Amino acid sequence: EHIPFTIERLSKAEMTRRSQEFYQEMNKRRSVRFFSDEPFPQEVMDNIIRTGGTSPSGAHTQPWTYVVVKSPEIKKEIREIIEEEEEVNYRRRMGDKWVQDLACIGTDWNKPYLEIAPYLVIVLKQSYGIAPDGSRLVHYYNEISTSISVGLVLAAIQEAGLVTLTSTPLNAGPRLRKLLNRPINEKVMLLLPVGYPAPDATVPALKRKPLEEFMTAI
Amino acid sequence: EHIPFTIERLSKAEMTRRSQEFYQEMNKRRSVRFFSDEPFPQEVMDNIIRTGGTSPSGAHTQPWTYVVVKSPEIKKEIREIIEEEEEVNYRRRMGDKWVQDLACIGTDWNKPYLEIAPYLVIVLKQSYGIAPDGSRLVHYYNEISTSISVGLVLAAIQEAGLVTLTSTPLNAGPRLRKLLNRPINEKVMLLLPVGYPAPDATVPALKRKPLEEFMTAI
Ligand SMILES: Cc1cc2nc3c(=O)[nH]c(=O)nc-3n(C[C@H](O)[C@H](O)[C@H](O)COP(=O)(O)O)c2cc1C
Ligand SMILES: Cc1cc2nc3c(=O)[nH]c(=O)nc-3n(C[C@H](O)[C@H](O)[C@H](O)COP(=O)(O)O)c2cc1C
Repeated sequence: EHIPFTIERLSKAEMTRRSQEFYQEMNKRRSVRFFSDEPFPQEVMDNIIRTGGTSPSGAHTQPWTYVVVKSPEIKKEIREIIEEEEEVNYRRRMGDKWVQDLACIGTDWNKPYLEIAPYLVIVLKQSYGIAPDGSRLVHYYNEISTSISVGLVLAAIQEAGLVTLTSTPLNAGPRLRKLLNRPINEKVMLLLPVGYPAPDATVPALKRKPLEEFMTAI
Repeated sequence: EHIPFTIERLSKAEMTRRSQEFYQEMNKRRSVRFFSDEPFPQEVMDNIIRTGGTSPSGAHTQPWTYVVVKSPEIKKEIREIIEEEEEVNYRRRMGDKWVQDLACIGTDWNKPYLEIAPYLVIVLKQSYGIAPDGSRLVHYYNEISTSISVGLVLAAIQEAGLVTLTSTPLNAGPRLRKLLNRPINEKVMLLLPVGYPAPDATVPALKRKPLEEFMTAI
């Protein structure tokens, strides 16, 4: 079944203004690694994740699961798992090249923010689905779709006046999946701590490419 | 070098309101396959792509390239390549299961919107980088980073009062890459026609999962 689709029309001046304002707002976003423990309303968190649920997805499979962790005990266990694996990543598993490529960001295996941020959002992709009769459903482009959904979540966090860190719990996925009691068809992709920045938060002084370095028009 | 980072603080009421409004705006988004040929300002297109350039990326590699096609001749060639490959996809390459899984959306290999929409945005991931001395740079998580960037682009299109279709030119990537003169380290991921919907546009009557079906809180 197909239904008519219309949008509210904006004037050219209005669309130019809105596109510029949205760019400026998103351009303020930075990945933050120093959080305050100050809480914020669950309703805001819910609206942020709801926004992720509006994402397009291959064949409308909606192949994402968001686990929102508020429990201090679970946050502590998550921190333990990730720091343990990250220490191995940095010390021997990933090699000098990897460590060097991260040097500009100044990270290491210590991640106190995993206990300090009021919420940790663990994002899983459903690499396949399970039909009511137990058979497998193909989830076309599940990693791309879930990542696009996360892009919308990041925009929603920014719009709500909060900050996050897009992070990949490298080699910790299977242990996190078990801790969170998620089924085998779901794979941990990303972890987003969400909250306010610490009053003395700093970020690496990185620059973004100007438009002409990543866009060509023909 | 690290620099201080602060944000503008919103009241709890304000953040709740903003998170709800942003969700409602994004929830109006639909993938549109019927476009009007009405143009819109290049400046709006630029701001939309600029927004994609604010995305986080693994080790700040910014591994995305956006090719914005306005030329009617190139749009025609793109349409020819994609329809040719899609006909093979539907008729024999992808199999019955694939065709069946797409039935609810009602698509086939005819894609007139590829010539009608005022702009086609081709999104490429840089699967590796090339240093000034010619050596290869590792682009950590380049597909995830590029997809997150696309999530921000989709939000920007919606905010500007325009529509798009998130589409994957299946098996047409290499031919499109050559047509667009992009280097071998770049792989075509997605194609986004951008513009106004046709006055008689329709969309499949799909429902989105409610929050409790894709979020769990602990
Ligand atoms: C990674 C990805 C690939 C997609 N590929 C196609 C495609 O090739 N052709 C198409 O018509 N739609 C494609 N879609 C659009 C989906 O069919 C659409 O998002 C889904 O049916 C949900 O509809 P909505 O976007 O209107 O919410 C794709 C979406 C995603 C995220
Ligand atoms: C897919 C992906 C994985 C990332 N993984 C990590 C990570 O594990 N740890 C970390 O501290 N930052 C991680 N980052 C954040 C990047 O380092 C950050 O986005 C980049 O340095 C640019 O900074 P910005 O987000 O402030 O613009 C990741 C970002 C992306 C998109």
